Amino acid sequence: MSHSPADLLITGCTVLVHDDQERIGFEQDAAIVVRDGRVESVTSAADAVGLAAVERIDARGQVALPGLINCHTHAPMVALRGLAEDLPTEEWFNDVVWPVESNLTEKDVELGARLACAEMIRAGVTCFADHYFSMDTVAAVVTECGMRAHLGEAYFSSQGPQGREKSLEFALRHRGSAGGRITTALAPHAPYTVTDTDLAATAQLALEHGLPVHLHAAENRDQTDTSLSRHGITPIEVLDRAGLLATDLLIAHGTGISDRDLPVLERASGHIAVATAPRGYLKFAWPDTTPIRALRAIGIPVGLATDGAASNNSLDVWESMALTSLVQKSTEGDPRWLTSRQALHHATLQSARAVGLGDSIGCIAPGRRADIVLVDLTGPHTQPVHDLAATLVHSARSADVRTTIVDGRVLMRDRELLTLDVPAVVRELGERLPALVDRSHGRRIQEYDT
Amino acid sequence: MSHSPADLLITGCTVLVHDDQERIGFEQDAAIVVRDGRVESVTSAADAVGLAAVERIDARGQVALPGLINCHTHAPMVALRGLAEDLPTEEWFNDVVWPVESNLTEKDVELGARLACAEMIRAGVTCFADHYFSMDTVAAVVTECGMRAHLGEAYFSSQGPQGREKSLEFALRHRGSAGGRITTALAPHAPYTVTDTDLAATAQLALEHGLPVHLHAAENRDQTDTSLSRHGITPIEVLDRAGLLATDLLIAHGTGISDRDLPVLERASGHIAVATAPRGYLKFAWPDTTPIRALRAIGIPVGLATDGAASNNSLDVWESMALTSLVQKSTEGDPRWLTSRQALHHATLQSARAVGLGDSIGCIAPGRRADIVLVDLTGPHTQPVHDLAATLVHSARSADVRTTIVDGRVLMRDRELLTLDVPAVVRELGERLPALVDRSHGRRIQEYDT
Repeated sequence: MSHSPADLLITGCTVLVHDDQERIGFEQDAAIVVRDGRVESVTSAADAVGLAAVERIDARGQVALPGLINCHTHAPMVALRGLAEDLPTEEWFNDVVWPVESNLTEKDVELGARLACAEMIRAGVTCFADHYFSMDTVAAVVTECGMRAHLGEAYFSSQGPQGREKSLEFALRHRGSAGGRITTALAPHAPYTVTDTDLAATAQLALEHGLPVHLHAAENRDQTDTSLSRHGITPIEVLDRAGLLATDLLIAHGTGISDRDLPVLERASGHIAVATAPRGYLKFAWPDTTPIRALRAIGIPVGLATDGAASNNSLDVWESMALTSLVQKSTEGDPRWLTSRQALHHATLQSARAVGLGDSIGCIAPGRRADIVLVDLTGPHTQPVHDLAATLVHSARSADVRTTIVDGRVLMRDRELLTLDVPAVVRELGERLPALVDRSHGRRIQEYDT
Repeated sequence: MSHSPADLLITGCTVLVHDDQERIGFEQDAAIVVRDGRVESVTSAADAVGLAAVERIDARGQVALPGLINCHTHAPMVALRGLAEDLPTEEWFNDVVWPVESNLTEKDVELGARLACAEMIRAGVTCFADHYFSMDTVAAVVTECGMRAHLGEAYFSSQGPQGREKSLEFALRHRGSAGGRITTALAPHAPYTVTDTDLAATAQLALEHGLPVHLHAAENRDQTDTSLSRHGITPIEVLDRAGLLATDLLIAHGTGISDRDLPVLERASGHIAVATAPRGYLKFAWPDTTPIRALRAIGIPVGLATDGAASNNSLDVWESMALTSLVQKSTEGDPRWLTSRQALHHATLQSARAVGLGDSIGCIAPGRRADIVLVDLTGPHTQPVHDLAATLVHSARSADVRTTIVDGRVLMRDRELLTLDVPAVVRELGERLPALVDRSHGRRIQEYDT
């Protein structure tokens, strides 16, 4: 241990830790020593008494968790929050979201991304996987606000080869930027909007450049049924045929993954992961949710996500954690399944793996990046504590996060955001909304037809 | 309008109002004048400028809603929050909750009720329907903390006739107490723990004394199936045969209400209502949820509830509102059903009717009791606002409630509780937990056998 002062010392908290079997436990009366953006050690509060540190946080009564990871979102879409309510998927896309997105400017994306980052930092999210347009702008916001992000420039085949090329160019240029906080992926939209040729070319580029791929696939049962009737194979089999299962692949949603897809996924030579955002599946009244139990049986990590706020209405990953547990119990008809500890495993190591950062984030342990949130459990709704995992998953809420830290830097302290000015963003975005939501032009950026 | 100062003047907020068709709308830049515990008027902020008031709240950027109503809970069970996790209903009752409840003392009930009231006031709940034991103690806590409550002393037939008599005695003695804030009900536990004879006697007492009845019935499909196989009739038909459908009856859960029950309920001569607490149905992996669409078709109001925190893990009615919308869409397979405005109607007038207070609470209008909560929508997760109803139901959270008012009295101001001392309650309750959760005695207060 170095003799120079630590950069940050967090004392008196309970720390969520993983043992060597990845079982979740809690170290009480602990301290976390942070140096050079990493966790140097997790020690006892008593042992930390004499330690020198540049910055100290007294976290008594709080629990330190690995920062939450939003494994699939479209951050700038917070600008459309509440604009397309109570609609089936097809009308949501064709009548509202895709017409409105034809108005989208870089300034809208910038303001949306700022608002989204503010929301996520306040909700204890330290990293997000974003799949959207004008991603240079999103990367700039991430750089400025201090979050970690896994970014991909989305494209449709309707854009011609330029879409694919732009996605590659973005991924290569930004990989490792913001002091390593930004990682990148190729981001074809989905098998129903990107041709087999483009998917195959993407797989090849991914392998050639060592890049992961992030896309929507088998989002719901309709898409799987349509794929089967049109092509005779499922969306997952389309990905396999295109070579995408040989890449490190993050699949958003996958509620349409069918039994015949499971051996295909199990045989994949790439690292495959799925992001689940259960709130939207309920809201769109999709018949299924992500088949987490089946995916677990074949070793596929499932990370937590919110999707964009235009469908999910918030970027509250904490809510996704609770809903994942509740919906999985209900769907499987088994109250013993997806316990709070399992939910926390999805929220931590599995989410870190889903965004390709399984070795650097997702747990609080020596050598890991210091992405940490401190959660206050002194409120009446989180007392008493008979089972801390249950308290965290089922009683605590995102608003109980008091402090959010990324790479050892405090981005929110005692609920005060330190890197973003929400009122200014809301004011400026508000002025732009009439132009953004105008649909009188009759254009849309794409047609939804599974 | 009187010339003496108003007791309370809330200015600058947006007010949720109901029109004469009970459609929900929002008055912007409004003011609420409160006098003698009632809403005297809802006016414009401009018109309120010159008004004198003893107490003023500047509520710019906030929305005033009728206080939320928790239509079915067991408030003191917050003491068991997180104690019985990931279990099927039968084990939850027989192995944990009913053994532990055999240790319950009045002091545990008192501390639990205080903690529960603190949690509810912080979450914007102004009224709750409680169905539990030692209800004199709960009534005392309600009197002290300023909430409104609809209370019933629960009983099983295993207690002998004393159970029923005690429930009646409680209901008569406390009705109208706490300056009218306490109303009461007879509270048989459920058709599976109370005999037909006791149910019939309860119905008769209810009619004789003008009291409503609050009980669990048709909680899940298992109970309905067991009732059919043992008695040849459903739990709802059991209630009908006992004469309970001629009383004003609040049925908790009702996820086991079947198609054949609907005409029975529709023919009822009493005011029938159902309380829905969807989180627990997911967590217990029950196959159904409350059939709200069918109940609406026959004119039965459905109020929002949390059940006790031993199953629901919180008393967060705001979450129940969002989950009701999401689960109903999913269950009915219809994203257009249970819109945010419908959810707000359940949260306001339907919940007020469910607890027998449909004429005095549930909307902000002249003459209604001043049970009001102020919700802050300036946070990044609730911006921008394209559709205020959607923002409230799907983006806002209970932690966004800043101020809670009952009968014109401020119980929480800017998130500070004014009538309860949470740290003291948590400390005292913590000391009692080892004795409370001890199950080594092998006793239980009752056996779960649907």
